[in-house]
Amino acid sequence: MPRVSERGERMPQSPIRKLVPLAEEARRRGVKVYRLNIGQPDVPTPPQALEALHSIDRNVLEYSPSAGLLSLREKLRTYYHRFRIEVDVDDIIVTTGGSEAVLFAFMACLDPGDEIIVPEPAYANYMAFAIVAGAKIVTVPSSIDDGFALPPVERFEELITPRTKGILICNPNNPTGYLYTRKEMEQLQRIVKQYGLFLFSDEVYREFCYTGAPYISAFHLPEIQEQVVLIDSVSKRYNECGIRIGALVTKNEALKKNVMKFCQARLSPPLIGQIVAEASIDTPADYMLATYNEYVERRNLLIDEINKIPGCYSPIPMGAFYTVAQLPVDDADAFCEWCLREFEYEGQTVFMAPASGFYTRPGMGRDQVRIAYVLEKEELRRAMHVLRKALEAYPGRKNPE
Amino acid sequence: MPRVSERGERMPQSPIRKLVPLAEEARRRGVKVYRLNIGQPDVPTPPQALEALHSIDRNVLEYSPSAGLLSLREKLRTYYHRFRIEVDVDDIIVTTGGSEAVLFAFMACLDPGDEIIVPEPAYANYMAFAIVAGAKIVTVPSSIDDGFALPPVERFEELITPRTKGILICNPNNPTGYLYTRKEMEQLQRIVKQYGLFLFSDEVYREFCYTGAPYISAFHLPEIQEQVVLIDSVSKRYNECGIRIGALVTKNEALKKNVMKFCQARLSPPLIGQIVAEASIDTPADYMLATYNEYVERRNLLIDEINKIPGCYSPIPMGAFYTVAQLPVDDADAFCEWCLREFEYEGQTVFMAPASGFYTRPGMGRDQVRIAYVLEKEELRRAMHVLRKALEAYPGRKNPE
Repeated sequence: MPRVSERGERMPQSPIRKLVPLAEEARRRGVKVYRLNIGQPDVPTPPQALEALHSIDRNVLEYSPSAGLLSLREKLRTYYHRFRIEVDVDDIIVTTGGSEAVLFAFMACLDPGDEIIVPEPAYANYMAFAIVAGAKIVTVPSSIDDGFALPPVERFEELITPRTKGILICNPNNPTGYLYTRKEMEQLQRIVKQYGLFLFSDEVYREFCYTGAPYISAFHLPEIQEQVVLIDSVSKRYNECGIRIGALVTKNEALKKNVMKFCQARLSPPLIGQIVAEASIDTPADYMLATYNEYVERRNLLIDEINKIPGCYSPIPMGAFYTVAQLPVDDADAFCEWCLREFEYEGQTVFMAPASGFYTRPGMGRDQVRIAYVLEKEELRRAMHVLRKALEAYPGRKNPE
Repeated sequence: MPRVSERGERMPQSPIRKLVPLAEEARRRGVKVYRLNIGQPDVPTPPQALEALHSIDRNVLEYSPSAGLLSLREKLRTYYHRFRIEVDVDDIIVTTGGSEAVLFAFMACLDPGDEIIVPEPAYANYMAFAIVAGAKIVTVPSSIDDGFALPPVERFEELITPRTKGILICNPNNPTGYLYTRKEMEQLQRIVKQYGLFLFSDEVYREFCYTGAPYISAFHLPEIQEQVVLIDSVSKRYNECGIRIGALVTKNEALKKNVMKFCQARLSPPLIGQIVAEASIDTPADYMLATYNEYVERRNLLIDEINKIPGCYSPIPMGAFYTVAQLPVDDADAFCEWCLREFEYEGQTVFMAPASGFYTRPGMGRDQVRIAYVLEKEELRRAMHVLRKALEAYPGRKNPE
């Protein structure tokens, strides 16, 4: 019998995956499970987008161009312009979700053995795609005590080797909700320029910045315009994760050419998703504002509630719709599993993502969880009450210091 | 400035790609271009599929499961059963087009340096995905003189090394239209079993077998059930290439587990495409039969017409909707380019795919083109007349022997 690939065996499996069947079982037992574990918003997709879907007037659902429909790329250019990201249509390559944009960015920039530096905790699938590309992710720890701010750039510089090809950030950040400041972005610009690196910048949560602090795109850094590889997706901002439409944006001609070869190999991004995405970009401001306000209120409620639970601490996330919180437990993996397997309070329990899946360094974030505030406020409030009760009942709870 | 990846630079670029802008220019000059170059059928998508699209009744276009919607996988199981392919729902993993099924099959089976053996000419993107996976494609030439039959298995055996992990076939074949016989498939079974290999079998054209000869799926081979990796796609059979829905089918538990890690990294296949694909599987027999009959007639017309042109030869394709034909020219790349750049006959010209893009061995297939019979019969007839005129006018034409 032939053996499967070692590459596959090295692929990380998120701790969430092990919990999914437990959550199913809990539901089958009749337990109400508050799903705080994934970034699947409950907010409806914009009506304009659904209308566009229902009124598709085509007889043949044919291939679209490998770089995506020109009309969508034109809309995206206008969209980016609103955020003072000035790019040409040719700089925008439509991908099958932000996931494919990450994969193609790695494939087109990195060779096996190349390294990229990433602040952690970080979105787990970056590690997965790095393994696919045969590249190595080198992490710089950020700390909950600093609200997960960018570590000092000296920490990055210490890790730069001849194989380092880039730095990867997610801004606003998944999983921490941190929003990088202008000063931090300028520090990144300096080392990216000095060492001749790529700056991979995943900015899919740009619509969700809450503190009045400005959103600083990697494309706002004037000295590294050709080194920025922007990762984007319509999934989160229009609540249409299922249509699988993202984009890779670059002004680097050699990189565009390289990325396009991967795009051509997979023929085309999804046609219908592109039509829906195009209509979504015209979503009226009132929908966007209502969504935004909803997340602001959820964030305030969640952070208030969690910080009232004895032994819990969450910094205030400045963007996206996640936070990483510290719990009074030694092993959040075990606690999250216990919540689903053994605990219920008035027929309810919580499903959270153990933060261990967002770290590569062993032992880091063991007492942390990621909470996605993708539920309605009343649900969130009840979920936090259930979490409080769970921590009270948990046999492995740490004594307050 | 950071350098792009060598991997990307090694990615092949199909000779068609260079011709696409020339075809655009010809059209802008007012020339009617017969597009015989790609497998984008002109046949309408089934009405049931379009209806399903228009009646999607969801408020949130959310992620689907990483393995695909259960209801689609159940439908696919029933569909495969019709072809005596007996698999469980758990054996079926939904992918973003057949392309992703090829990529994930390679990623999950092959490590860098591993080899697979492929009869050539072969679908060009296999080579591209092999480069993505860091694997090596080793080719066995098939010959137009044998109608592109499977080369003797001894030719495969000679190429087997300790790094050989599998054999890849496309059946019915793109680009040649060849349909492997039972005897050929049994020969493959023998060496796949003997050497402990995977058999990657791309069977997306199974609905298009024209000669009364039976379609022998790799899953019809009883002794290598755990070694078969079936590649599938709804694109061609329901004329919905743009929805990007395919499948990877395997009974190998270790492989399923490995493939699922790649599926989880990219989160989910396109939701809307899955809904359309599911409805497509219920397409009534009369639509399928009408499509089939249409291709039979196109095939007969095309092969008749091309074989009447002095110096041209095409074997009779037994399946799919392509043929590889030999032309009386030394360099089909140059001829195809000339047709688009310099030639027109009564305001018309032809766009064909030079066969060089389907070979890896230098110099092979230099006088061959792939023709996709994806146009209506009258268009095809006119296209063949234009090809005849082009060959008469071409300065590089070989003298008849």
